[in-house]
Amino acid sequence: MQAARMAASLGRQLLRLGGGSSRLTALLGQPRPGPARRPYAGGAAQESKSFAVGMFKGQLTTDQVFPYPSVLNEEQTQFLKELVEPVSRFFEEPGCGILCLPQEVNDPAKNDALEMVEETTWQGLKELGAFGLQVPSELGGVGLCNTQYARLVEIVGMHDLGVGITLGAHQSIGFKGILLFGTKAQKEKYLPKLASGETVAAFCLTEPSSGSDAASIRTSAVPSPCGKYYTLNGSKLWISNGGLADIFTVFAKTPVTDPATGAVKEKITAFVVERGFGGITHGPPEKKMGIKASNTAEVFFDGVRVPSENVLGEVGSGFKVAMHILNNGRFGMAAALAGTMRGIIAKAVDHATNRTQFGEKIHNFGLIQEKLARMVMLQYVTESMAYMVSANMDQGATDFQIEAAISKIFGSEAAWKVTDECIQIMGGMGFMKEPGVERVLRDLRIFRIFEGTNDILRLFVALQGCMDKGKELSGLGSALKNPFGNAGLLLGEAGKQLRRRAGLGSGLSLSGLVHPELSRSGELAVRALEQFATVVEAKLIKHKKGIVNEQFLLQRLADGAIDLYAMVVVLSRASRSLSEGHPTAQHEKMLCDTWCIEAAARIREGMAALQSDPWQQELYRNFKSISKALVERGGVVTSNPLGF
Amino acid sequence: MQAARMAASLGRQLLRLGGGSSRLTALLGQPRPGPARRPYAGGAAQESKSFAVGMFKGQLTTDQVFPYPSVLNEEQTQFLKELVEPVSRFFEEPGCGILCLPQEVNDPAKNDALEMVEETTWQGLKELGAFGLQVPSELGGVGLCNTQYARLVEIVGMHDLGVGITLGAHQSIGFKGILLFGTKAQKEKYLPKLASGETVAAFCLTEPSSGSDAASIRTSAVPSPCGKYYTLNGSKLWISNGGLADIFTVFAKTPVTDPATGAVKEKITAFVVERGFGGITHGPPEKKMGIKASNTAEVFFDGVRVPSENVLGEVGSGFKVAMHILNNGRFGMAAALAGTMRGIIAKAVDHATNRTQFGEKIHNFGLIQEKLARMVMLQYVTESMAYMVSANMDQGATDFQIEAAISKIFGSEAAWKVTDECIQIMGGMGFMKEPGVERVLRDLRIFRIFEGTNDILRLFVALQGCMDKGKELSGLGSALKNPFGNAGLLLGEAGKQLRRRAGLGSGLSLSGLVHPELSRSGELAVRALEQFATVVEAKLIKHKKGIVNEQFLLQRLADGAIDLYAMVVVLSRASRSLSEGHPTAQHEKMLCDTWCIEAAARIREGMAALQSDPWQQELYRNFKSISKALVERGGVVTSNPLGF
Repeated sequence: MQAARMAASLGRQLLRLGGGSSRLTALLGQPRPGPARRPYAGGAAQESKSFAVGMFKGQLTTDQVFPYPSVLNEEQTQFLKELVEPVSRFFEEPGCGILCLPQEVNDPAKNDALEMVEETTWQGLKELGAFGLQVPSELGGVGLCNTQYARLVEIVGMHDLGVGITLGAHQSIGFKGILLFGTKAQKEKYLPKLASGETVAAFCLTEPSSGSDAASIRTSAVPSPCGKYYTLNGSKLWISNGGLADIFTVFAKTPVTDPATGAVKEKITAFVVERGFGGITHGPPEKKMGIKASNTAEVFFDGVRVPSENVLGEVGSGFKVAMHILNNGRFGMAAALAGTMRGIIAKAVDHATNRTQFGEKIHNFGLIQEKLARMVMLQYVTESMAYMVSANMDQGATDFQIEAAISKIFGSEAAWKVTDECIQIMGGMGFMKEPGVERVLRDLRIFRIFEGTNDILRLFVALQGCMDKGKELSGLGSALKNPFGNAGLLLGEAGKQLRRRAGLGSGLSLSGLVHPELSRSGELAVRALEQFATVVEAKLIKHKKGIVNEQFLLQRLADGAIDLYAMVVVLSRASRSLSEGHPTAQHEKMLCDTWCIEAAARIREGMAALQSDPWQQELYRNFKSISKALVERGGVVTSNPLGF
Repeated sequence: MQAARMAASLGRQLLRLGGGSSRLTALLGQPRPGPARRPYAGGAAQESKSFAVGMFKGQLTTDQVFPYPSVLNEEQTQFLKELVEPVSRFFEEPGCGILCLPQEVNDPAKNDALEMVEETTWQGLKELGAFGLQVPSELGGVGLCNTQYARLVEIVGMHDLGVGITLGAHQSIGFKGILLFGTKAQKEKYLPKLASGETVAAFCLTEPSSGSDAASIRTSAVPSPCGKYYTLNGSKLWISNGGLADIFTVFAKTPVTDPATGAVKEKITAFVVERGFGGITHGPPEKKMGIKASNTAEVFFDGVRVPSENVLGEVGSGFKVAMHILNNGRFGMAAALAGTMRGIIAKAVDHATNRTQFGEKIHNFGLIQEKLARMVMLQYVTESMAYMVSANMDQGATDFQIEAAISKIFGSEAAWKVTDECIQIMGGMGFMKEPGVERVLRDLRIFRIFEGTNDILRLFVALQGCMDKGKELSGLGSALKNPFGNAGLLLGEAGKQLRRRAGLGSGLSLSGLVHPELSRSGELAVRALEQFATVVEAKLIKHKKGIVNEQFLLQRLADGAIDLYAMVVVLSRASRSLSEGHPTAQHEKMLCDTWCIEAAARIREGMAALQSDPWQQELYRNFKSISKALVERGGVVTSNPLGF
């Protein structure tokens, strides 16, 4: 009973997180909530354009994914090209060339050792405009769209993740709320100084007792009787830039009166808080495994008076604001990590090309070849996802939460694997500080944890995907009760199910969308989608709303969803390269085919296990029992084989 | 052509590494080479007692694995118990209790920060006898057998891997050569001071251009015309204790005259070298990712005069000496890491038990339960392997190289996964220095690399296993040429093959060996062994000696071998617990069953892919081509999707 309640509570939280209520769904994913740009105004349901939403329903929703989007116009492209060169130069290793004066070059090893970003780097970044990349130019920023931003972030990620987090904490989450939800007055007041780097921002959501469960924060903001200000009390943990920031986006509980019932409920509200308001202190910089250059500190708010005009978005809508900010920033992490992997792969290739063992360069060994090939496939998928999501956002897509979450999960795990393998290829040298690969591995460890742990995001991907499918099925449920009234729906659905079960295929096809040279891989993706959707449907029919309790199942569905989206993304990108005759098109075809062969096999095996493996339930029971025994014992239950 | 030559060269090296020539096979794995204890004297082939060797041939060779061995007599047990308590106390966290005075307690975080083992810890370890655990008591050591040693190493591994490496570099490899191959005079001269810690030892094999390819070392030892000494020149890289050691086991090329032909060949010889001989210097301590407390330094030998009586083992047999030392020490790494995992799992369980999110302790979530269960399974398997191998060695087993290599591969990968998952469970807290888990992850990264990279050891496992099977098949080859002369062999073999192919099973069974409650898991192991052996046989028939070129195949065979050995080891241990009515027997049954279900599925799918997957060859080709393109390009081949 208790477990069921807990699970239901988590389920609700997750659905809220992802926009489980139709109201939240309608609001999430918009660049700016305002009547003029509200595509789902009136709350009317509309067929989602998200490929990921479709795949849970057994549909090929290809609008957002085919063809691989190219969103920059000529002017935007030219502008970006002019930025790429100086930003790259800024991050190149010291001694890279005669033009690099030492003070112009960032030194990631030094930042790591100093546990801060060097002052010269700060200044250089400010001069480059790196503190306000997406702030409109009329407010002093560079005015980049998401795709342009992705390209620059990729460069930062290639060179120094500590600097990347400092910049990302500032603009990807720190003041993104002002960009997305700020009033004209708030924007004009804060953005110019933030864009120039004169002030630094931080995003304050996490608390000691509130990590993944963001809705459970305790920091409070009590409105004054006069209505002119709020009094903020509480503390926020592990805040990037927490010790440096001047401007904080703070989430706090506020009492909100329901206009209909008059009842008062505690709801989260977002605030823009200046350090100058007084009452703000912070703890010492946290000692961490990696991203040491990035300042992380606890921030304390003690009776801080925040003017009412500093409410960000609507009172009571802070949870939505927070999730919207995070959702909007995820592509940036994937883009940065695609850059990280590009840099790491170059180091691995360099070593494999120059190191001789057993009388040969080691890249001649199959073991090394397989490692390098797998590394570059992970890079290709991550990069393809990052630019797909950023382009979809630039195209005005409103439904990309699942895709954004997948790109964060995939990118953070891919970069970890790639960097770990680089160390393995380099052997003892990889473990040494000098080549700088171990630093990257240390930096990367947090990416699977922060801004939504990959575990919670997996549940989100699966539940969010199941939600829409669930709605379709409840329609089916009514139809089954009154078959004559809904014969069309029923026959259509039953027909699809019957065809799937009979192995006749769903009639779905990507032909005409994927390049003919990739048609086999396209078919693999379609078959995988059918297998996936069949299991989703069967599990929803079996568990109904109780699916929120089924975490063993949900994470396996999420793994399938990730593999499937990855297949489609690389199919799209490689198809474009083939169609346009890119010089690397045949190489991309090979990356795509190889990925699709293996991903299709994983989905086939994974879904078959969920569908028909007689052991599956026993495994889940055992995991539960084993874990329970560990908790009771406080650790490993068995003694060693000697018994003492 | 070139690739084939390279592969053949690697194959030869590997077979040498594992004792590919019958002479080396006969010598490897013995505790002490001497005519009285040479079981394969005369080079006569004898059926191996190794389970791992048998499984490659489709045989159930159960002598060494069933029942799970208990090798300590009452006196040894009592003695060990008296050691466990003070050693544990020595490593307990500061403030653990009123009896722990600060100076008696090792502080791993401090050692890590200082990048050295604290002086008080050194002294304490010396007083405990920790520097000479396996040195005979008459020479001043504690005189432990391998199983007793494993138990103490497990404690060190649980608390401080930096200290563990310092101690292990000293006695597990540093002076192990003297214990195994030393003359009486060498032992009496060196072991007493080494055992007391008055002198410290280091193992000097690796060189800048010679890592996995140990046979390619360049350090030379030239005999003097008078024959009284050798002049040693060269340098050794990444030597643990290199900056501290007084006694070095050094491997160098020496000219060796073939008594038959008179030809002079360069062969490796091992030497015991004192720092006091002069001409020895070392570099600064290397800056590393982890095990910072352990000193790592380059050691330079510049015209060092080494008396001829300091040759260790026979002149020219140094490669064998090196491999024998490493082979003898591998169980210790698995034992240490079983301890590491025990400590880490306790931390993960503690966090999962006390952390509340979504209104519940997080151990109630399926996601966390599955993580904890998988962590403890990996610990159980590693621990079971470590004590199985150490017991086999104590029982006088001579053929345990594959098992020892598997225990090193498995343990180092298991500990990495377990510690990584602990961090994931702890979330942001896991990334902080304070709980000490990130330090363990950093420490662990080198365990998959040193003392034989897991990649090279995988090739070794597969090739060593295939070698014996290959010999059987060449017998079969002759039989096929002359079917009437060898009808028995042919019919027997053909019958086995036919039955396997017809799915009738091999008639093999573990019944009577595994406890009846585990009979289903026992059957899974037998079926997995049949599937594995069928593929080994088919691939050997297909590739013959060319199998050494097939690294994609070999590493997949190694993965199968590792899973299979792991199944048998836990089946044996859990069976013993059930038979003896241990209080944790039912829990162990669950660990064993869960492991076997999943391992059997992995083997079934992996072997089916090798046997019949139409994609397999395409995947290998693609890995090769993709890698080649990366090497030509010097990194990632494709631009990002923007094209610049």
